[in-house]
Amino acid sequence: MNVGIVGATGFGGLELVRLLKNHPRIKKLTLYSSSKKGDSIDRIYPHLNGIEEGKLEDIDPYNIPKQVDFLFSSAPTGVSASLLPPILEQGMKVIDLAGDYRLKESETYKQWYQKEPPDAKWVDRAVYGLSEWNTDQIAHAQMIANPGCYPTAALLGLLPLVNKRLLDVSTIIIDAKSGVSGAGAVPSVSSHFPFANDNLQIYKVNKHQHIPEIEQMLHQYSETNKPITFSTHLVPMTRGIMSTMYAKVKDGVSAMEIEETYTEYAEQHEFIRLSPAHGLPSTKHVMGSNYCDIGWSFDPRTQRITAVSVIDNLMKGAAGQAVHNFNLMNGFPETAGLPASPVFP
Amino acid sequence: MNVGIVGATGFGGLELVRLLKNHPRIKKLTLYSSSKKGDSIDRIYPHLNGIEEGKLEDIDPYNIPKQVDFLFSSAPTGVSASLLPPILEQGMKVIDLAGDYRLKESETYKQWYQKEPPDAKWVDRAVYGLSEWNTDQIAHAQMIANPGCYPTAALLGLLPLVNKRLLDVSTIIIDAKSGVSGAGAVPSVSSHFPFANDNLQIYKVNKHQHIPEIEQMLHQYSETNKPITFSTHLVPMTRGIMSTMYAKVKDGVSAMEIEETYTEYAEQHEFIRLSPAHGLPSTKHVMGSNYCDIGWSFDPRTQRITAVSVIDNLMKGAAGQAVHNFNLMNGFPETAGLPASPVFP
Amino acid sequence: MNVGIVGATGFGGLELVRLLKNHPRIKKLTLYSSSKKGDSIDRIYPHLNGIEEGKLEDIDPYNIPKQVDFLFSSAPTGVSASLLPPILEQGMKVIDLAGDYRLKESETYKQWYQKEPPDAKWVDRAVYGLSEWNTDQIAHAQMIANPGCYPTAALLGLLPLVNKRLLDVSTIIIDAKSGVSGAGAVPSVSSHFPFANDNLQIYKVNKHQHIPEIEQMLHQYSETNKPITFSTHLVPMTRGIMSTMYAKVKDGVSAMEIEETYTEYAEQHEFIRLSPAHGLPSTKHVMGSNYCDIGWSFDPRTQRITAVSVIDNLMKGAAGQAVHNFNLMNGFPETAGLPASPVFP
Amino acid sequence: MNVGIVGATGFGGLELVRLLKNHPRIKKLTLYSSSKKGDSIDRIYPHLNGIEEGKLEDIDPYNIPKQVDFLFSSAPTGVSASLLPPILEQGMKVIDLAGDYRLKESETYKQWYQKEPPDAKWVDRAVYGLSEWNTDQIAHAQMIANPGCYPTAALLGLLPLVNKRLLDVSTIIIDAKSGVSGAGAVPSVSSHFPFANDNLQIYKVNKHQHIPEIEQMLHQYSETNKPITFSTHLVPMTRGIMSTMYAKVKDGVSAMEIEETYTEYAEQHEFIRLSPAHGLPSTKHVMGSNYCDIGWSFDPRTQRITAVSVIDNLMKGAAGQAVHNFNLMNGFPETAGLPASPVFP
Repeated sequence: MNVGIVGATGFGGLELVRLLKNHPRIKKLTLYSSSKKGDSIDRIYPHLNGIEEGKLEDIDPYNIPKQVDFLFSSAPTGVSASLLPPILEQGMKVIDLAGDYRLKESETYKQWYQKEPPDAKWVDRAVYGLSEWNTDQIAHAQMIANPGCYPTAALLGLLPLVNKRLLDVSTIIIDAKSGVSGAGAVPSVSSHFPFANDNLQIYKVNKHQHIPEIEQMLHQYSETNKPITFSTHLVPMTRGIMSTMYAKVKDGVSAMEIEETYTEYAEQHEFIRLSPAHGLPSTKHVMGSNYCDIGWSFDPRTQRITAVSVIDNLMKGAAGQAVHNFNLMNGFPETAGLPASPVFP
Repeated sequence: MNVGIVGATGFGGLELVRLLKNHPRIKKLTLYSSSKKGDSIDRIYPHLNGIEEGKLEDIDPYNIPKQVDFLFSSAPTGVSASLLPPILEQGMKVIDLAGDYRLKESETYKQWYQKEPPDAKWVDRAVYGLSEWNTDQIAHAQMIANPGCYPTAALLGLLPLVNKRLLDVSTIIIDAKSGVSGAGAVPSVSSHFPFANDNLQIYKVNKHQHIPEIEQMLHQYSETNKPITFSTHLVPMTRGIMSTMYAKVKDGVSAMEIEETYTEYAEQHEFIRLSPAHGLPSTKHVMGSNYCDIGWSFDPRTQRITAVSVIDNLMKGAAGQAVHNFNLMNGFPETAGLPASPVFP
Repeated sequence: MNVGIVGATGFGGLELVRLLKNHPRIKKLTLYSSSKKGDSIDRIYPHLNGIEEGKLEDIDPYNIPKQVDFLFSSAPTGVSASLLPPILEQGMKVIDLAGDYRLKESETYKQWYQKEPPDAKWVDRAVYGLSEWNTDQIAHAQMIANPGCYPTAALLGLLPLVNKRLLDVSTIIIDAKSGVSGAGAVPSVSSHFPFANDNLQIYKVNKHQHIPEIEQMLHQYSETNKPITFSTHLVPMTRGIMSTMYAKVKDGVSAMEIEETYTEYAEQHEFIRLSPAHGLPSTKHVMGSNYCDIGWSFDPRTQRITAVSVIDNLMKGAAGQAVHNFNLMNGFPETAGLPASPVFP
Repeated sequence: MNVGIVGATGFGGLELVRLLKNHPRIKKLTLYSSSKKGDSIDRIYPHLNGIEEGKLEDIDPYNIPKQVDFLFSSAPTGVSASLLPPILEQGMKVIDLAGDYRLKESETYKQWYQKEPPDAKWVDRAVYGLSEWNTDQIAHAQMIANPGCYPTAALLGLLPLVNKRLLDVSTIIIDAKSGVSGAGAVPSVSSHFPFANDNLQIYKVNKHQHIPEIEQMLHQYSETNKPITFSTHLVPMTRGIMSTMYAKVKDGVSAMEIEETYTEYAEQHEFIRLSPAHGLPSTKHVMGSNYCDIGWSFDPRTQRITAVSVIDNLMKGAAGQAVHNFNLMNGFPETAGLPASPVFP
């Protein structure tokens, strides 16, 4: 199988290269980049020296379907809206890692992204690629809107409880923390090492564009549509997201119900792990892997649950989940191309 | 003035040495350590080479009042309970940086610390040294229970609003994050560099001994006694605490009232700063200083405020606040011995 | 194939677990630990939850050959001397990651390790497992003394030039830098996060036990036996070694000869990469992989070459090289079980 | 005294603000910036909120002498060449933290900086501000060329031995390591957190513009002019430089002579400290302070000394040394405005 990656020089693209070079069903990668076309990926990123050395191709939506059998698009949000439709119209299967096709309501997209939404036809057809929750739809989709990193962590932690109606959804507060790679490969002030190192930054409180994405999915599985409180922090580490989530349980819900719900959920899904013995997960427990680890604590004093989920933002939060979805779409084993173990320490 | 420091080889003690060597009213330091007595501080900590070179004295509560005019005690919690009463009985003024004398209810202390509480007489007389809130009492106290690092950050952020009855206190959730120096100078697994670096850990959810300390003070300034939800995270940085706090505002409370409350509060206190232009503070903005920076955001969708406070855990969260209290107790200028500026970057 | 790992809870052992779980020829791992016997590896290291969950077996040299077909020993130096001979006498193939069997001269071992050397019989038979330089011997060995992390980086950078007689070996100076995982999994003062973070430490100057190991191998490939100057630094990162090496070139040696030597060397070896276009390698270029990247610069003003090699200390410097040797010993493809790409960023 | 700082928004400028706000002889700071004129420093750098809030003034060399009594210039190298002469001609005393006026030979400057050198008149008059070595000249200078960060660390470590003719200067190799703040406040690829974190980078081997600066000063104190070998590494920490220096001692030189030389040197200078008991210094021992700590080891096998010096690159390597020089020029106590103790941990 020949697979293409648009936006190969970003962090999502680079991680796709790492995974797909190790994928047993992929023969050849073709890398696309508008900003770096003609250059070679291993000159820009010497860690790929001897591994992937092809020239970066210009992005031409009419040529791509002639060159590859499947496309991952990891361009910045806003690019996919115009780039992907001509490719999709030619029948190609696509996984888009950007935000363009995730929000079903065009008004919501405009409000949070301050951009024009893509063609409604493809927004409608795009399947939200939260692998564990839309498994069947993903398997039959032509087009996947791969979830954002924060929504992946938050939803994998919350949906099991929301789906079973265990939480008062009007009380959900999500305090999310991310490593700096979440800010992308382009240098900026907040990611300048002397500022980011030995520092904890908070940003975009109640303004992050991942808020409507989380709400859209929560609402699908809950009986009422309530807004959430969501804040995001920049932690001085390269990879990893921790989502600390607070909510009141509904009257009468017991710790045992929560335990059973999470246990069953973890048993059913290859990449979901429940921290043993009421432990709490650390981001390093999943680094470099596609796992989402979940832990929780119930406080009888406040009737609140504190749930914690961790992922590697570039893996389960981006490229790893994309490859998982690729496997589902193609009938490959779910774990194909995905590392057997996190990198630790 | 001759000043003594018990537990000088811990991080609180070391930071006291740094500050007091620079204090215009202090002539001499005497350092006490039971575990390292006879050794010299600069051999253990070479950064003090040429700065403070005296031998570490053994801790003898009957000798200390003969040797020094004022005592800072930075021994681990549990030691002060037996160590300090004989010193206090001799009339010496003491600031205790440990947890022993902070909680007024002995049952609460037993429950959260799993230790026997100190003599009730001195617990009663101890003034909780939150400098901005107990200023007058501190000025006239013989004995200060210096606040914990997490409570300092949380209370400085919450009390202005709680005191003005702007919050529904039953909805308070505190998501606290600390640098690893908060865990002390003794190596442990969770602070071993290969585990702590590039990692985010969450610990003691709803179980941290700082919970009753925060609640005790919140209850003093609010109309009802409600338990809080509190979680703590270990961030891969050396210093710094960020406290991200969530609460519903009471019906009818406006963003302008919050702004005015915080503005007035910051104007009245030397070491409280309000982030300008609705910015949000980073821990690095206060590193090495005694400042507490506060920012906030109000979300009309949820009627929740997200307030953020940052401190240097070893400064405002320990030694800096202790020196501030020392100044208040002795009628010195509030800023004496405290750095004029954070260290940045 | 059933494979055993002694000392599975150390960093070398953990990395072996990561690699061998992904090795196509290995059916089962048996993990041994004297200190943690009876416990399960995934309870101690939750990143292995769901991946490797067996109980840790006690280390019994007479039982091990009945339980496994091949043994990796990653116990601390000094343990292998007594542990391995009874296992080897039963004909089992063993790769030892400790220092015990690396030095051929027992007096040298005593002097640098301050320990009694192992039985000379097995020291003599042990093949020094520098994969690229002892390839044939490794393929036919019963017992491999896997190289130390610093020697691997230094030797892979120096031997090509030394072997071609391009350097004045009496001028070799090696300035080595390591990430903190090189200090092992047991917490210590110098690896306590508040001390190691944002800090650069230098240690064991001219005293490191890896000095005689480097010299032994250099002398084998050079015409004279000269002592080297060697210093080691602790860098605030988890993984990675950089070896910066200085030497005078012999009279008349040109930059082109050096370039040709390195180019040919890199072309012949799967895991050796020459930095393109006279670039210089960073440790992150090889993180999580078995690569050794090499760069260099020749200064005509001083007639000195500065050569730089980088490895992941837990991979090429320990477990990765061990798996490479395991593949050579068993006739498997050299890359079996080894990741196709570094983890970046 | 009213003092001006040109280039106040760079790291050198910011550190000057921190120090000078604490200087007992300075009444007022005036901050200049061409790129940020009109903005206020505390809006760009919130750590200065409430500490230094003035508007950034445009840089006008004809106005500056009317506004301030003394000028620190911390503009990028190349700017001072044209900016400072008109100011100097008006008789103002200036300390320049850039590289423009450090090299006495204009050809050398052109070759290493690839820029036009400043007016020879002021290059001649500029005193190289290595505080401990040019103390008297500094005291009487109108204009100081403040040393580079790497040269400061290397020279303070080498000059005592070179000056006493203890070293074979033709064998000097300097392996220097710096924290990322050395690269300045402007974001770049190599200082982008995801690339710089958990990584060790080497750069500009034998090409760094600090080489001729080191050589110029070494040659002044040695009997022969020999080129040095010099390499620079980027360490994942914010502040700190370690200079590891290798050289053969001259025939007959003993370890005792080295010890005596360093001991005497440290005793004579306020900010030079010799690591006690043959210890070796870490960069964190001097963080936030103006100290240079020195340690060393002599290897009788190779007759080489390994000397190690550490500084805080923004302090002794820039602003701290500048303030020290300012004190010398004005007859103030050497330590005025300089912190009594490093910040540790």
